Order: sequence, then C-alpha cells, then structure tokens
Amino acid sequence: MKKLINDPNAVVGEALEGMALAHEGMILVHRDPDFITRADAPVRGKVALVSGGGSGHEPMHGGFVGRGMLDAACPGAVFTSPTPDQMVAATMAVDGGAGVLHIVKNYTGDVLNFEMAADLAREAGIDVHAVVIDDDVAVQDSLYTAGRRGVGATILAEKICGGAAEAGMRLAQVAELCRSVNGAARSMGLALSACTVPHAGTPSFALGADEMEFGIGIHGEPGRRTIKLAPADEIAAMLMEPILADLPFRRGDDILLFVNGMGGTPLIELYIMVRAARAIAVKHGLSVSRHLVGSYITSLEMAGVSITALRLDAAMRGYWDAPVVTPALRWGA
Amino acid sequence: MKKLINDPNAVVGEALEGMALAHEGMILVHRDPDFITRADAPVRGKVALVSGGGSGHEPMHGGFVGRGMLDAACPGAVFTSPTPDQMVAATMAVDGGAGVLHIVKNYTGDVLNFEMAADLAREAGIDVHAVVIDDDVAVQDSLYTAGRRGVGATILAEKICGGAAEAGMRLAQVAELCRSVNGAARSMGLALSACTVPHAGTPSFALGADEMEFGIGIHGEPGRRTIKLAPADEIAAMLMEPILADLPFRRGDDILLFVNGMGGTPLIELYIMVRAARAIAVKHGLSVSRHLVGSYITSLEMAGVSITALRLDAAMRGYWDAPVVTPALRWGA
Repeated sequence: MKKLINDPNAVVGEALEGMALAHEGMILVHRDPDFITRADAPVRGKVALVSGGGSGHEPMHGGFVGRGMLDAACPGAVFTSPTPDQMVAATMAVDGGAGVLHIVKNYTGDVLNFEMAADLAREAGIDVHAVVIDDDVAVQDSLYTAGRRGVGATILAEKICGGAAEAGMRLAQVAELCRSVNGAARSMGLALSACTVPHAGTPSFALGADEMEFGIGIHGEPGRRTIKLAPADEIAAMLMEPILADLPFRRGDDILLFVNGMGGTPLIELYIMVRAARAIAVKHGLSVSRHLVGSYITSLEMAGVSITALRLDAAMRGYWDAPVVTPALRWGA
Repeated sequence: MKKLINDPNAVVGEALEGMALAHEGMILVHRDPDFITRADAPVRGKVALVSGGGSGHEPMHGGFVGRGMLDAACPGAVFTSPTPDQMVAATMAVDGGAGVLHIVKNYTGDVLNFEMAADLAREAGIDVHAVVIDDDVAVQDSLYTAGRRGVGATILAEKICGGAAEAGMRLAQVAELCRSVNGAARSMGLALSACTVPHAGTPSFALGADEMEFGIGIHGEPGRRTIKLAPADEIAAMLMEPILADLPFRRGDDILLFVNGMGGTPLIELYIMVRAARAIAVKHGLSVSRHLVGSYITSLEMAGVSITALRLDAAMRGYWDAPVVTPALRWGA
C-alpha cells in the first residue's frame, strides 16, 4: 500500500487537522465528535444545511462547507458512516433558528444514523428535515444500499440548496428543492482501478490489466459488470445512455453536465470525457448550459470517472450560479 | 495502459476541445496553432502574461488563463515543449499595447522556443520580456534541463504577476516581480508511482512496491534517488528540509505553503501532508499565512506530492489575494 499517510488509523483525524490549517477563516474543524462548520456558523435566521458520510471521498463533504453551500459536514471513518452524535453536534452547532436540512446519501448506515440524529435534534427543539439522495442508475441494491446509491447529485443538491438557503428560502421549500434536484439528476460511474482502504491495506477488488468495472459505486463495491477496456468515446456512451434513458431526459432539456474524477484520474482525461459526453448530450437534443469538471466525489486513489446529468430549471440555474465560498467550490464572491 | 482516451495522438486536441466546452465564456481555445486565451483578450492597456509548456501537467497552464492570471497559455504535446509559432500567435493575440511577459519554466526546449518566439514578436513590434522559473532544489541539471527545473513556483508567479498586471503595473515591473517570486520560492517533489505518456504506452520509470522516487521532476525523469517508503511526516521532512535550507528561509519569514498533488494522489493524503509540512515550517520559526492545496502541476496519473514554499512580502500577499477567475483558481470575483 503506497500512500502519503502516517498511521492508517489516524488518516481522517490528520487530514482534518490539515484542512483546518489550509482553510482557516473559511471553516472550523471540531473534534470529538468530529465535524466541520463554516467559520461564521450559526447564521441567524438562515436554514442550515448539514451533510456527511464516510471519509475517502474528498473533497466531499468537508470541502463543500462554507458560505453558499453546507453549514456543516460530518466525516466518518474511511468508507464508514459518521455516527449520530457527530450529526447531532453539527446540527446543534449550525442551527440559526430557521431549522436544519440533512442531505443524506442513500447508504444504509448513513440513512439510519441521520434518522436517529434527526430524532434527537428534534427532541432538542430543532426543526429538522431530511432528504435522501439516490441518483445512481447503475444498480438497484448494493453491498451498501437498499435502493439506488447517492453519488454525484449530492454535490449539485448541496450547491443549489445552499444558494437557496443563503437567499432566505424557508426549510420546507429548501427540502422540496433538494428533492427536485435529486429527482432530476441521474449518474453512473466506471473504474479503471481499485482503491485501498488504509486500515485494510489491500485493494477492495481486482481488475485485470485490460479490464474496467462498469457501474461502480464510491466504495469499491462491485458495479454492473467487469468489461474490457474501451476508448473514451465508447465509455462516455456506456455511461450516458442509461443516464439519459432513465429520467428520461428529453429533447430541449437544459442540463448541467458533471464529469467527475474518482481520485486517481488526471484532469486531461476528464476533459476528453467532457468532450465525449457533451457530444452525446447534444446529439440527444439537450442543451448543456452548465458544466462541472474535476475530482469532487472520489474513492481514494481509484482511477475512473462518473457522469451526472441534472435537468435544470430557472431556479436551479440561479442557485447554481449564486456565490459560493468553500474549500472546493468557489465563485462569485 | 489504462486511460480514458481515444487515440494516444489525439489526447491534447480532444482535451482542449473539452476545456473549451466546459469553460465557455472564461477562455477561448484556438487551434492550429494551439493556444488558449482569456475570453476578453486582448485587454487594452494591460500587460499580458503568456506561459506554456508540455501537456500532461493539467490544470497547468491552460487552467490558469483568465482574469487576474494568464492572458494566454500554449500547450505542447504531452511532456513536449510547445513550438515558437504557438507562442508567437498567443503573444500577438493577447498584446493590449502594454507589452507581454513570457513566464517560462526552465526546460531546455521551452526556453529555446520562447526565446525564438520573443524575437519574432519583437520584430512584429511587441514589447516582450521573459522570466525563467527555476525553483526545484532537487537536482542541478536533469534530462530536460540545464540548471534547476521550473515547477510549483510557476503557478505562484502566474497568480501574483497576474494580479499585478490587472492592477495596472507596467511590463518591466511585472517582470521584476516575477523574478522576485522565483527568487523567493523553492520546491521539491516525490513520486509514489510512475506515469505513462499516452503515445509511449509504458511507464516512464520503474518503482518497486516499497519504493519512492525522491526529488522527482514533472516528466517522470529521475530524481535524487530511489528510497524506501516512509510515513507522511518523514516525507514532509525530507522535502521541507532542503527547501528551507536552500533559500534560506529564516525565523520570522511569512510564507505561502503550496502542497501539490502529482495527478494520481487523493486530496485526503494532501491534507495529511499539509499538516506535516506546516508543523515543520512553524518549528523553523516561519509563519504560514497563505496555503494552496490540490493537484495543480501534475505528471499525468503519477501518485506523489511536491511542496513549494514562497517567502511573501506585502505586495505578493496583496496580489495573491486579488480576484482571479480561471478554470482552476477562482476567488474574490
């Protein structure tokens, strides 16, 4: 296992300490229980957004904490749900009196723990709504999920709902917007290589030198099937066709196209995938008015790509474009 | 070779097409000869900044084109200098009448071609200054260089000089500032794995399962030596000690600490390296008032890290903080 780490059991804590140093003034890192808040939390009168999940997917979620996006994020151990006490502490810390939205990726542990945390926070008098994200069209159930997995749409929902909350939208409406984003987004991913969880020490699955795992999730769990290497244009078609057919996206729809690297894939390859995916979208009669390209929801050092398409409406476009100041996404301010 | 590509010979062109689509309105991609300009170039009366180099180091340099940073970038083939005709065309396209600064990494091909391009542009009546960046303390000469290689300081110089040019600084002073940044910055890198140039098809060097290449450059060229795997804190010390001793950095200096991923290294590991490097800087008596963390100057899918330290003065801090709107760096606007 070749990693820039010290102790496999200290990976998350040491990375949090590094984040705190690198982004001082933007975020605050709290320990025991571990959570990250925007530096100026709680913001009085604003709906607060809290997300979280296993570590190893950086910059998700801690990298999306800041003005215009998340108020707090709870990092679990690598590929392991955070615990309810983290979620409760984060929820209490960022509630500004207007309630808190939990944005939860659909993994069994995350869903159960966020449900428990929401109950506890409500008992403490905080108004909590929760939305579960399940945009991955690859598989119906998986090692980690009943139902579809939550992947790339999570980030889009966090940004768009963050913009809405910043603009003064009330809790029930922010939750409804979050459900709308999830309902209008579809994703699919593919891996060229496996990844190694630090405390496991060995790769989470095996791929031959000429093989790819198609329909991969973000934990190295099996996808739809193992297939032979293919050119980027064919890979883009394999990912885009099930995405476009599932919603379905229709001629004339305007979309946000999110081409995401899994952690070990260089940017030059992601741009080749953008070119290919965009051509398929245009051929399908879609316009592509927004793009996001980079490694934003990752699986440690896994090489691979996922694509997310989100059908935009005017409100979503506006909240997407709104200012955001976080470690990983920053514009307009 | 597992890559998200179509034709190994079409990698650069297809990636440029993807960039143009993903960042419409921010940059323009010109083909034959290939170069990238900010969308609103030329900016009348502003000193223009042009850089360039081999592809495979993305987001450098094309990702740094935009308001507050570069006016143009010239991408060569993978790990190969761009040609003088690209540099001349870019220089002519962005000159706004106040002259053009060429920011050149110290590789033999880049230096010769930029010199030829500067001569040609001057014959066409454009005032051109050039600054060569050579911040890598690892080796004196290399396969690609006479003298030290130009690495991470390039990005810091592009940002700081871009801020100064945007603020109205004249050409000779921007060039002097660029030399000051280069003179106050030192870098060193380390690889955990090699990378594969697409048209070569095989890794550029070999590393055992328990080995790292210390003092690596950005082309897979040999470094100082091959060494055994070590914990992140020890790696940080191996990189920071020669950096700090070389300038030398002195107690009380304020620095920008840039922890850079080589392309295949996940962000969670870079944050662990930030924690380690920052502790060494503080122990050395330095204050660290600015950080940059991410994969900004890469070697395709190479796993590894480089560290750059820049001794800041008040002017550099101000131009670093100034607004920037590029594909890869964006803040304050």
